[in-house]
Amino acid sequence: MSAPVKYLTQLPPPAWLKRQLGLSGNTVLLVIFDRRLKGKGPFTSWVRQFPHRYGVAAGEKLKAVEQFSHHVHRLDKLVGACPRANLVVVAVGGGSVGDFAGFFASVYKRGVTLIQMPSTWLAAIDSAHGGKTGLNVGGIKNQIGTFHTSSLTVICRDLLATQSRAHHQAAFAELYKVALLTGGKLFRATHQLEGLSSASLWSVLPLAVAAKNKIVARDPQETRGERQLLNFGHTVGHVLETFYHLPHGIAVALGLKFAVAWGCQLGLTSGKVNQVVQAELEERLELSSLERQLRRRKRLPMITFKRLLERDKKLASAGEVVFVFLERAGRGRRIKVKVAAILREMRRQGW
Amino acid sequence: MSAPVKYLTQLPPPAWLKRQLGLSGNTVLLVIFDRRLKGKGPFTSWVRQFPHRYGVAAGEKLKAVEQFSHHVHRLDKLVGACPRANLVVVAVGGGSVGDFAGFFASVYKRGVTLIQMPSTWLAAIDSAHGGKTGLNVGGIKNQIGTFHTSSLTVICRDLLATQSRAHHQAAFAELYKVALLTGGKLFRATHQLEGLSSASLWSVLPLAVAAKNKIVARDPQETRGERQLLNFGHTVGHVLETFYHLPHGIAVALGLKFAVAWGCQLGLTSGKVNQVVQAELEERLELSSLERQLRRRKRLPMITFKRLLERDKKLASAGEVVFVFLERAGRGRRIKVKVAAILREMRRQGW
Repeated sequence: MSAPVKYLTQLPPPAWLKRQLGLSGNTVLLVIFDRRLKGKGPFTSWVRQFPHRYGVAAGEKLKAVEQFSHHVHRLDKLVGACPRANLVVVAVGGGSVGDFAGFFASVYKRGVTLIQMPSTWLAAIDSAHGGKTGLNVGGIKNQIGTFHTSSLTVICRDLLATQSRAHHQAAFAELYKVALLTGGKLFRATHQLEGLSSASLWSVLPLAVAAKNKIVARDPQETRGERQLLNFGHTVGHVLETFYHLPHGIAVALGLKFAVAWGCQLGLTSGKVNQVVQAELEERLELSSLERQLRRRKRLPMITFKRLLERDKKLASAGEVVFVFLERAGRGRRIKVKVAAILREMRRQGW
Repeated sequence: MSAPVKYLTQLPPPAWLKRQLGLSGNTVLLVIFDRRLKGKGPFTSWVRQFPHRYGVAAGEKLKAVEQFSHHVHRLDKLVGACPRANLVVVAVGGGSVGDFAGFFASVYKRGVTLIQMPSTWLAAIDSAHGGKTGLNVGGIKNQIGTFHTSSLTVICRDLLATQSRAHHQAAFAELYKVALLTGGKLFRATHQLEGLSSASLWSVLPLAVAAKNKIVARDPQETRGERQLLNFGHTVGHVLETFYHLPHGIAVALGLKFAVAWGCQLGLTSGKVNQVVQAELEERLELSSLERQLRRRKRLPMITFKRLLERDKKLASAGEVVFVFLERAGRGRRIKVKVAAILREMRRQGW
């Protein structure tokens, strides 16, 4: 039940969106969009075609549960009179906008139709797919959320083209994660990318999206565990992201590096695979130099690491988490490990 | 996919609840309960058996979206460290507690298991079944909500026995509504009830619950329209409830009376059926005298009526609502009607 994905070069007119879903002329498209897109390329004139629109400041604050009531009141003023069946939420932005608008769509009037239009590479590759929505409670990401698959995901090259090189790098980690988990054609294509640019990422995007959706389809609501494979690189990544205030993608890359090296140390990952992955991450993202910088800037105390890890909702039981290792390209493996064991390995790897 | 329902005379121990769901000893049961139950019968000593409990003040304020963040923070402090798979929310209270706790369970950690334990007759007959949860936005009831079917619904006679005669009357309307919609054995049993008491309501409860669940099963997420039958009596009922500050059940009874009389006037409902229903409602709830009192107290201006009706999320399209009529016992019928037509009929019926 994954969403149909359309790849377009240009932003589509409202009527096109309605036609894709077979919606009547009465349908109200409520566009919730990242305000920073204003003035970028053709976005401003495009969004003005929608009488019902709501600009937000993207970022984690948008997802704070404390802000939710404020947003709901304003959104309800815009579209409260519209019957549930006639309302479609269109989320235009990166991960935070997609998470927020997706959550709103999943609970407003007990759930309305959702269209995702990712505007960042990270969202286009990862967060706009799979139906997860989320709000944050205190510092804990996505402690509130739902599974609400979009009825349509529209990826516009024009929107993504406004992104800088830093965004291409951040997106690479999630791309490489899913490539490592699924192997095959996507894995080869990712290794063969000539540099990281809009053009190169665009060329592998459909393969990457299909690969993620395949994993999600086996365990849509994360009740059977298989979807946890997508946490590959995220256990340690999330902690580094919070502690060092890193972009999500870069933190995940550090998490992938850690997980593969640990797997090798434990004999779960072959030396050859470890070597290939480390080299690829190094070549694309220069992680060794970043690691040195971070460690010099501020040492991560293990007591803080433990606290941040345990606060993460992915705790399997007291003092244990499900950690994703890589056996080989195309074969992830979930193993329950003690938090203390992760701590020891962090020290061994020089954190 | 309706929830299994257990009918018990006494409040069950925590271990019994876990056993019913096949849960491990590690499971955390988070009891969200109506604080007013404290001191009533065996409730206080029962609830003390649960280390994780959260007392709330029942009522519409509990369901205000403005309060949600406050509750989530407090609940997260209680059970934030508990893994999603090990957490079960147990909702003990009337409709507002069930709606609030059900909503919380449906979004916390992207959804945890829910047990409903209704403590009011209205909840036992109606709101604890069918999986609807809800929060209010401004004055609009359930403008935010989810469908989250409980994994188990436990109805304890001991809990319900603390309710007064007024509650029996309020519950009768929802009981009679579902009896009229489904006809047959439940319809006959409802007419044959000797007075309204804990004992008489208990005797028809399993039939009424099964009847509601049967309607819900045909349209669990209210996407196909059939579930709208359960709005029988609620279109006008909700307006009267808000305007006159009536108990929900009593307002629904007035709404049923209105709908059946209107159906008769339109030739949709036979004169015989109208007569039987009016007589039954009159005998059980003395509605004529109540109507006279209300009209004397405060006249309902039609402009206010229209505003309250249109604010209701059940608007099918601009100026129209789906109204439920009764053709005969066991046969409801949904018809799209103009708000203006309802207004005219309200006047005709003397409102």
